[in-house]
Amino acid sequence: MVDRIIHGDPRTVAQAISLIENDAKESTDVLRALFPRTGNAYRIGITGPPGAGKSTLTNKLAKYYRTQNCKVGIIAVDPTSPFTGGALLGDRVRMSDVELDEGVFIRSMASRGSLGGLSKKAKEAADILDAAGYNIILMETVGVGQSELDIARAVDTTVVVLVPESGDGIQAMKAGLMEIADLFVMNKADRPGADQAMTSIEFILGLRPHSGQDWLVRIVKTQAHEGKGVAEVVTMIDQHRSFLQTSNTFVERRKIQLKQRIHEIINEQWHFDFWTSERAAYLTEQIEQVFSRSLTPYDVAQELVLHFK
Amino acid sequence: MVDRIIHGDPRTVAQAISLIENDAKESTDVLRALFPRTGNAYRIGITGPPGAGKSTLTNKLAKYYRTQNCKVGIIAVDPTSPFTGGALLGDRVRMSDVELDEGVFIRSMASRGSLGGLSKKAKEAADILDAAGYNIILMETVGVGQSELDIARAVDTTVVVLVPESGDGIQAMKAGLMEIADLFVMNKADRPGADQAMTSIEFILGLRPHSGQDWLVRIVKTQAHEGKGVAEVVTMIDQHRSFLQTSNTFVERRKIQLKQRIHEIINEQWHFDFWTSERAAYLTEQIEQVFSRSLTPYDVAQELVLHFK
Repeated sequence: MVDRIIHGDPRTVAQAISLIENDAKESTDVLRALFPRTGNAYRIGITGPPGAGKSTLTNKLAKYYRTQNCKVGIIAVDPTSPFTGGALLGDRVRMSDVELDEGVFIRSMASRGSLGGLSKKAKEAADILDAAGYNIILMETVGVGQSELDIARAVDTTVVVLVPESGDGIQAMKAGLMEIADLFVMNKADRPGADQAMTSIEFILGLRPHSGQDWLVRIVKTQAHEGKGVAEVVTMIDQHRSFLQTSNTFVERRKIQLKQRIHEIINEQWHFDFWTSERAAYLTEQIEQVFSRSLTPYDVAQELVLHFK
Repeated sequence: MVDRIIHGDPRTVAQAISLIENDAKESTDVLRALFPRTGNAYRIGITGPPGAGKSTLTNKLAKYYRTQNCKVGIIAVDPTSPFTGGALLGDRVRMSDVELDEGVFIRSMASRGSLGGLSKKAKEAADILDAAGYNIILMETVGVGQSELDIARAVDTTVVVLVPESGDGIQAMKAGLMEIADLFVMNKADRPGADQAMTSIEFILGLRPHSGQDWLVRIVKTQAHEGKGVAEVVTMIDQHRSFLQTSNTFVERRKIQLKQRIHEIINEQWHFDFWTSERAAYLTEQIEQVFSRSLTPYDVAQELVLHFK
């Protein structure tokens, strides 16, 4: 399997990502064996509120990178509910520019109702693509919450896509988007209110404490559906990449990301080891007493840690 | 402190929440002592995309509940970046209907850049308000990510606020909002596209597998700014509450929430115990080798777990 991935076989890549998604034990072995082959791909996060056109932009970016002879991997992280699956989402339709291209690998990952873990899995899937020789990895995430922030921290360049209707800059700021963006894209820039929205974001960016050594976050207007502005987005991503490399931030960021990965591996292993069937049964038994307020959650937690040592 | 909280002193409540926010050791003692007094408040989550008018609706709901003689606690969870603080957000302005009312307690909680932990803190703050005799607790969260889902699971009724411009129902569904909503609010319903957006969400709700025993998720139109539709929202929340109580789902939900809390307490304690300064130093030392690919993250994780036992 490892060999076939290194040789870039898309079917095996897909199988390996399925192993990760299904929490298969072997996935760790595969990831461990592939790890020395990782670190070469450039990872770009595409995030923003629902409806901003992230999939369209991702599609167009992939198409553009293909003209530069890059192999492109796309991971669309999707917290969609299990009851709808992916069938309604139209991802395949919106990726129509590249979906038949053999140099592009597209994978949608959903949380399937499990609490957490999705961002770890998405990063692992990116490692598989990295080892398989994809030069550019686009990680598309919807939303602005914790797992999106986790993923944003796991890429080299984070692109935040907004639309005029996303509300003013204050709303974007409230959503935590301001601090993760290396680059803003104002998509659907032909719509009313686009200039006002641009001004509002520029104003807030201007409030940031900023030294001459920092990367200057900028905004690009696009109409991704028509392909307008996509080349400019790529240029800005390239500039950010150069900045990271010349300022040594690239190495620092990647080291922080690797640390984060080690944390996640340990957390997961610990969780697996701690929650034995005995502990789970004890918790279920005691919860009645907690509900009736004759025990506190702190008592039960303490008991689970100490008594079962 | 515990006594003063039980007697409903708002200053002490504020201090206790600050202890929680600052990870002060004493906060656990306070929470443990207050726990027997909790479980009486009804908890309502208000969530949705940025700009949907969540704060305005929260404000109006609080005002409404005040006319019913309820004490109302509001926790606005805000993943805003630390560099802007809360000053620009205008929360105080938008809560103007109730901010001078002594029967309303308003607290904004921000993540301050820390990874995770915010949802646990928000739930603990809700416990403080619960013990202090607030009958209704409104938890407002922006965004659609993991910590918002965590908070949505920690309330009795989750209200998802959308606006016509949130995009069609498919976008809302993509954002994971469909599965957490007990009730949808289409705010700013006087704007163009509102009816279409309503239809679209109703269509998708209709696709859900549904038995006669389940709660039927519904949509209410509002213009929260003018107070229109707010009474209907309260009526629907009441209906959901009755449903939970007659179907016994209420008890089941709360038990699941308490289990979740115990999980969080244990995780936090473990994290604190595991990450000794020795282990942290070892990780920093080894990360160079991981970066150069002479070690894998899995090797370092294993070493941290086994070697330091």
